Amino acid sequence: MSSLQGYTEFKHFLISSPAEYVASVEINRPKKLNAFFEEMWIEFGKIFEKLSHDPEVRVVVLSGAGDRAFTAGLDVHAASENVVLGGGDASIDGARRATLNRRHLLEFQDCIGQVEKCEKPVICVLHGISLGLAIDISCCADIRICSKDTKLAVKEVDIGLAADIGTLSRLPKAVSSFSWVKDVCLSARGFDADEALAVGFVSQVLETKAKAIETALQLASLIASKSPVAVQGTKELLNHARDNSVADSLRYTGVWNQAMLQTNDIKAALMSGIKKTKPRFEKL
Amino acid sequence: MSSLQGYTEFKHFLISSPAEYVASVEINRPKKLNAFFEEMWIEFGKIFEKLSHDPEVRVVVLSGAGDRAFTAGLDVHAASENVVLGGGDASIDGARRATLNRRHLLEFQDCIGQVEKCEKPVICVLHGISLGLAIDISCCADIRICSKDTKLAVKEVDIGLAADIGTLSRLPKAVSSFSWVKDVCLSARGFDADEALAVGFVSQVLETKAKAIETALQLASLIASKSPVAVQGTKELLNHARDNSVADSLRYTGVWNQAMLQTNDIKAALMSGIKKTKPRFEKL
Amino acid sequence: MSSLQGYTEFKHFLISSPAEYVASVEINRPKKLNAFFEEMWIEFGKIFEKLSHDPEVRVVVLSGAGDRAFTAGLDVHAASENVVLGGGDASIDGARRATLNRRHLLEFQDCIGQVEKCEKPVICVLHGISLGLAIDISCCADIRICSKDTKLAVKEVDIGLAADIGTLSRLPKAVSSFSWVKDVCLSARGFDADEALAVGFVSQVLETKAKAIETALQLASLIASKSPVAVQGTKELLNHARDNSVADSLRYTGVWNQAMLQTNDIKAALMSGIKKTKPRFEKL
Amino acid sequence: MSSLQGYTEFKHFLISSPAEYVASVEINRPKKLNAFFEEMWIEFGKIFEKLSHDPEVRVVVLSGAGDRAFTAGLDVHAASENVVLGGGDASIDGARRATLNRRHLLEFQDCIGQVEKCEKPVICVLHGISLGLAIDISCCADIRICSKDTKLAVKEVDIGLAADIGTLSRLPKAVSSFSWVKDVCLSARGFDADEALAVGFVSQVLETKAKAIETALQLASLIASKSPVAVQGTKELLNHARDNSVADSLRYTGVWNQAMLQTNDIKAALMSGIKKTKPRFEKL
Amino acid sequence: MSSLQGYTEFKHFLISSPAEYVASVEINRPKKLNAFFEEMWIEFGKIFEKLSHDPEVRVVVLSGAGDRAFTAGLDVHAASENVVLGGGDASIDGARRATLNRRHLLEFQDCIGQVEKCEKPVICVLHGISLGLAIDISCCADIRICSKDTKLAVKEVDIGLAADIGTLSRLPKAVSSFSWVKDVCLSARGFDADEALAVGFVSQVLETKAKAIETALQLASLIASKSPVAVQGTKELLNHARDNSVADSLRYTGVWNQAMLQTNDIKAALMSGIKKTKPRFEKL
Amino acid sequence: MSSLQGYTEFKHFLISSPAEYVASVEINRPKKLNAFFEEMWIEFGKIFEKLSHDPEVRVVVLSGAGDRAFTAGLDVHAASENVVLGGGDASIDGARRATLNRRHLLEFQDCIGQVEKCEKPVICVLHGISLGLAIDISCCADIRICSKDTKLAVKEVDIGLAADIGTLSRLPKAVSSFSWVKDVCLSARGFDADEALAVGFVSQVLETKAKAIETALQLASLIASKSPVAVQGTKELLNHARDNSVADSLRYTGVWNQAMLQTNDIKAALMSGIKKTKPRFEKL
Repeated sequence: MSSLQGYTEFKHFLISSPAEYVASVEINRPKKLNAFFEEMWIEFGKIFEKLSHDPEVRVVVLSGAGDRAFTAGLDVHAASENVVLGGGDASIDGARRATLNRRHLLEFQDCIGQVEKCEKPVICVLHGISLGLAIDISCCADIRICSKDTKLAVKEVDIGLAADIGTLSRLPKAVSSFSWVKDVCLSARGFDADEALAVGFVSQVLETKAKAIETALQLASLIASKSPVAVQGTKELLNHARDNSVADSLRYTGVWNQAMLQTNDIKAALMSGIKKTKPRFEKL
Repeated sequence: MSSLQGYTEFKHFLISSPAEYVASVEINRPKKLNAFFEEMWIEFGKIFEKLSHDPEVRVVVLSGAGDRAFTAGLDVHAASENVVLGGGDASIDGARRATLNRRHLLEFQDCIGQVEKCEKPVICVLHGISLGLAIDISCCADIRICSKDTKLAVKEVDIGLAADIGTLSRLPKAVSSFSWVKDVCLSARGFDADEALAVGFVSQVLETKAKAIETALQLASLIASKSPVAVQGTKELLNHARDNSVADSLRYTGVWNQAMLQTNDIKAALMSGIKKTKPRFEKL
Repeated sequence: MSSLQGYTEFKHFLISSPAEYVASVEINRPKKLNAFFEEMWIEFGKIFEKLSHDPEVRVVVLSGAGDRAFTAGLDVHAASENVVLGGGDASIDGARRATLNRRHLLEFQDCIGQVEKCEKPVICVLHGISLGLAIDISCCADIRICSKDTKLAVKEVDIGLAADIGTLSRLPKAVSSFSWVKDVCLSARGFDADEALAVGFVSQVLETKAKAIETALQLASLIASKSPVAVQGTKELLNHARDNSVADSLRYTGVWNQAMLQTNDIKAALMSGIKKTKPRFEKL
Repeated sequence: MSSLQGYTEFKHFLISSPAEYVASVEINRPKKLNAFFEEMWIEFGKIFEKLSHDPEVRVVVLSGAGDRAFTAGLDVHAASENVVLGGGDASIDGARRATLNRRHLLEFQDCIGQVEKCEKPVICVLHGISLGLAIDISCCADIRICSKDTKLAVKEVDIGLAADIGTLSRLPKAVSSFSWVKDVCLSARGFDADEALAVGFVSQVLETKAKAIETALQLASLIASKSPVAVQGTKELLNHARDNSVADSLRYTGVWNQAMLQTNDIKAALMSGIKKTKPRFEKL
Repeated sequence: MSSLQGYTEFKHFLISSPAEYVASVEINRPKKLNAFFEEMWIEFGKIFEKLSHDPEVRVVVLSGAGDRAFTAGLDVHAASENVVLGGGDASIDGARRATLNRRHLLEFQDCIGQVEKCEKPVICVLHGISLGLAIDISCCADIRICSKDTKLAVKEVDIGLAADIGTLSRLPKAVSSFSWVKDVCLSARGFDADEALAVGFVSQVLETKAKAIETALQLASLIASKSPVAVQGTKELLNHARDNSVADSLRYTGVWNQAMLQTNDIKAALMSGIKKTKPRFEKL
Repeated sequence: MSSLQGYTEFKHFLISSPAEYVASVEINRPKKLNAFFEEMWIEFGKIFEKLSHDPEVRVVVLSGAGDRAFTAGLDVHAASENVVLGGGDASIDGARRATLNRRHLLEFQDCIGQVEKCEKPVICVLHGISLGLAIDISCCADIRICSKDTKLAVKEVDIGLAADIGTLSRLPKAVSSFSWVKDVCLSARGFDADEALAVGFVSQVLETKAKAIETALQLASLIASKSPVAVQGTKELLNHARDNSVADSLRYTGVWNQAMLQTNDIKAALMSGIKKTKPRFEKL
């Protein structure tokens, strides 16, 4: 697995290039079950902001280091010392505390949301313990697959709060049953890989983490072999469609593609279809 | 099953408290298959309006009395005598009749919609005959479970009208397949518990009504044991997310939780997590 | 199968009336796998515009002629000669080319979208090769069923473009898993009938094309036997619900039905329910 | 000025019928500058809810009793004793207090908003002191006129809060200059009748309160002489237009008028146009 | 005034080219005060659909022939004989009549709305009698100017209906005072040129119709001398902005201009700015 | 005028504190008429991002250094050398160029939009030459005032492009006449201070730049003397209202104020009202 240039500044994530135009990002705090603290999610946001415009990257695979966890979520110990979950400075009033909370939340949402904003597709591989923030993060990814041993939960209710980093905003639009969404979010109960597949949260379940990673890389390589103009447009238009009416989505699509049809990739793809060769596309 | 204080005025529903912080509401007109007439749905709306702010209640279980039906829907005999389905006063013109119809519909929608507006989660247990209004009502609930014998149908087309009390508005956002939604709504054909589970309309199917009620109560008790701040926020944010873009939902979430993170429940939950005790939360 | 009056002008589609109030539209270019070129989709749009107001028609069944394909999608050979995919006139600048592209796309979207705008329900029967435009078209239909041999793919990425005729706008709101939608749209990989059923893209899979057509006709006849006021209102309200918040949908429903409840069909339906006769409804 | 039947239960408002089909509602606490306390706004909401469906009423004129004030706004003395502005019970945590605040605010908004929801047009006559809640209330009215002596201010910032009963929601869509809206809302500075006219907040300024009332009654009588189907539809469609895109508004208009064109009022209006007589319209 | 090629088929409108890239469209039924009947508005829609893509046209000036009227609106005599205002076939029920009404209205809206959909800016010159449909039509135009003698009214309430061809949808977003909009729409009272200017309905008032036409042509010529890429983009983006949030508008603008910045017009404009020459732009 | 701590890193803007809690930001490139190049707008964005959370700042006054210009807009000379307006690398295709354009535009929009996102109110003082970007920037400010000598224009059409940094998105919602907006945006014609006042673009016109600055500082000091909880909430809620329906705005307001009413500022404001003292509010 070769390294990816320009990412050495990041401490809490392993970043490499396992295949041409594919980047791998691993959450790298396995001894603590890959639990997140503030410095980590700020770094996490920066990585995906950078990947978004990196012409060497066409697809990203996101996973967790170690055997035990994708991520156990928020590092509650660290969080209980910060201003928000820790209760903060007793001398300020409820409105001022609310302002600090809101600023903190919006920044946190923004960091995690970089996965969704990243122009390149992100495939998230879940395994082992995958709680709380694991759901927020993976909901931002484009494609979710997991290993059989994955233990998932929308855990926030168990620490006294409604999930606020994106799960409640994205999950209802990602899966098949609003009744199921309410069930797992209101009760914080766990669910396993098969249940995640049944409701469409993940699109594949593999035997082991290794197999899941392998499958993700194959899919990533397949997507990376396609026209990046077509692939990145598809991501953008699907995300726009989720949040808009069909009429608005069609209008936006027309405006998007009025430019994107002016790509040489179409000719390259059509020609290689005729010649049975593998097309090569310029960077993007 | 102990009674719940303050609900003795209601005639058409049995209201009790089967467990701490859990309310049970049963539609109580079993001889008529729990069919609804106007007085009933007005009462129904008032009950859920009251439960919404009742600090003794954290979760509601909604079911139908008797073995045969959750509800057979609208009492067509009664409805055919009222102004709307009965055709109304022939002396008034089409515009004035339309106004009466609209006022009637909006009031009817408003009564049934109190289930969705209720701040506390509502678990709906379907069994036996569950037609027409049964779907409107259960679509407003947060979690739907049913027994194996449930016979469901979006029946309105069979009496010459498009369902207008909420099924057509909520069902497309509750289940997995728009093709299936159109199929059952356009044809008025029946579907059973297994089909309801397969498309995600219900999240569990139990052998009998008794088992379904038992399961609902267990789930209700589980949810009732959690922080009511977290649970009620989760309901609100999920309903908001369904109807808004992800960006708007995240912004709303930030503003919601800027206040809600100022709860003692977080400390209580974190402490009892450490101490392995059961947390107690203040009323809400 | 009797003919349907008034549709003899159309060349590329077979139009007939296999049952009372049921129209059948077959894409009729089987030697070219029913691939579309511009003249065809303009005709296609006109047919559905006409069916929309034709009082002899209450349901439409849409299928592809021949054994091999519903449609292989865009006729790429023809398309590569037109202004858009062919790259166009090199003498005009990027902005002017964009304008031509956009006008072309919006017109193309508009033709295919007539299936969705058609006031009558459209049941789409997929079989054999069903690629690219096949998904755009069937996403506009109300109910999708298919035969076991159906080979589907959102194929556009393979020719260097993001699908722009409706698939990316409608598919996320039609099926159960956003992860699956991204998977098939980003990779252009094929999927079969069983996978289509599992995610809710189709609501039934039949052994053969013939069985699928037969099933579609039975369903069409069932729907055609209902009140057209109720059926057409149901289509309109479900499509409105998909694109609007529940609150807006309820308001619109109230305004829709303030008029539609003034139909004799309700009385006819209620009377025939009592008399156990088959109701007859006036044309619409 | 004759009385209007059915409104004797209301204590804080004078309700009469100064002209055929015209109702007058006067805020009646002149000694306290017509300042509002909770019981008053609950009554206020009920009055407009009742007027909305009262067939004897086609237009409402809303004004304040006495010479000094339309209303000085919230009775701060009363408010400082209630749970919200008073700070509430110190023993409950920030989240629970927030819940009480929100319930209180939404109920308050709902009462005042009945002016906007009222199906009949409401003409608001402002005079003298018109602060805080005066703006919230008058923003809900359809037409605003005032006398020369009117002293207006969006006063809430001066008591430490952002206006939350509707001013900030409705004012930006009612007047001509967002810069002006921000100016008066952020600074709480006063503005007079001429400035209100210049920015379009009021549509007329009259010399005295008496003249303003007289003008309002003439306008009310004029509107009351028109078809109530046309007038009430116009109010509904304009309010819908304010909050929706033009495309959605046109669609809603089509659905609204598909029923409303079925009125005898059109024939009556056309005939009386030809015959130069005054048309008579049925009640609504 | 030279003729404009390709518009000879149209009977009810005078179409010419008074200046380079400027088209003039005159409503041409002066003996009947330019009142509209169905055939006219269908033709009207087709004209603007054609102008939209005509590369010889960059700006359109719309006016009414004769001295007396821009248009007196709907030809009520003709309308009273058609199915909608005439009351229609008494043998069909209220729901079916509603369907006919709705189809009629949506088609009528669609014809008039072609002025707004036209990619080229439309300057509307109002003069004399300008009632009812005159407001619907001019609200679709981009810029409105008028002569001093203009007599305007939103007249529909006077014939028993709420204006449904666009006035109620567009007027609230076009002028400065919602109170004024409600005033003129609810009362159907007339207003003159000065009032129209004061509320921003027109942006200029000229002494006579001739002067107004002259001013419109000068403005049209000025706009026609600019880059059509820039001008048509500006129209599209302003109309999009009116109907969307600022965030959505900015996103759409970015996608629009990602293509449109690839025009040679920018270089041409910058060069001629330096060289003090008049730039020439390619057709669009 | 004292300095404001922490802003010494910024090169192109003068930042000071002319009064308690008031920050002044001056565009400081007077020799070049304060024209912007890329480095400047990135710095501009950072300054407002910092001011947003700076507890020493409650209001910002934004102006241009020198006598001649607020800003002449984009430095076209610099822009013509960058990738976007300069036409870019001829070797890349239209789609890839579009992507570079879009990234550039969204970043540019984001920098300028920090004025709107800034939690503190921003008062913009326009004077002299105020073209192009001057409108984009001032549209983001909360309150606009100007001196008599101000020369304004939405100038972009004159360099061959539709304005894309915010003017077209925000201006239609800031002023009184959509006809006027289209007029100035389509023609790029200039308009002066009086016209800006008449349409509500500015809320005051002062004799000279010095007077305008003085007036802005007085207004800033007035606002800075109020509760920052109330002021910042008012800005947030007004901006939210502009972009949302009244119903959504009211709901958001309720959730916002459920926290913000828990401020000591209310008590402080009420007490100082009684005691006739000047209240002091904690920082925010």
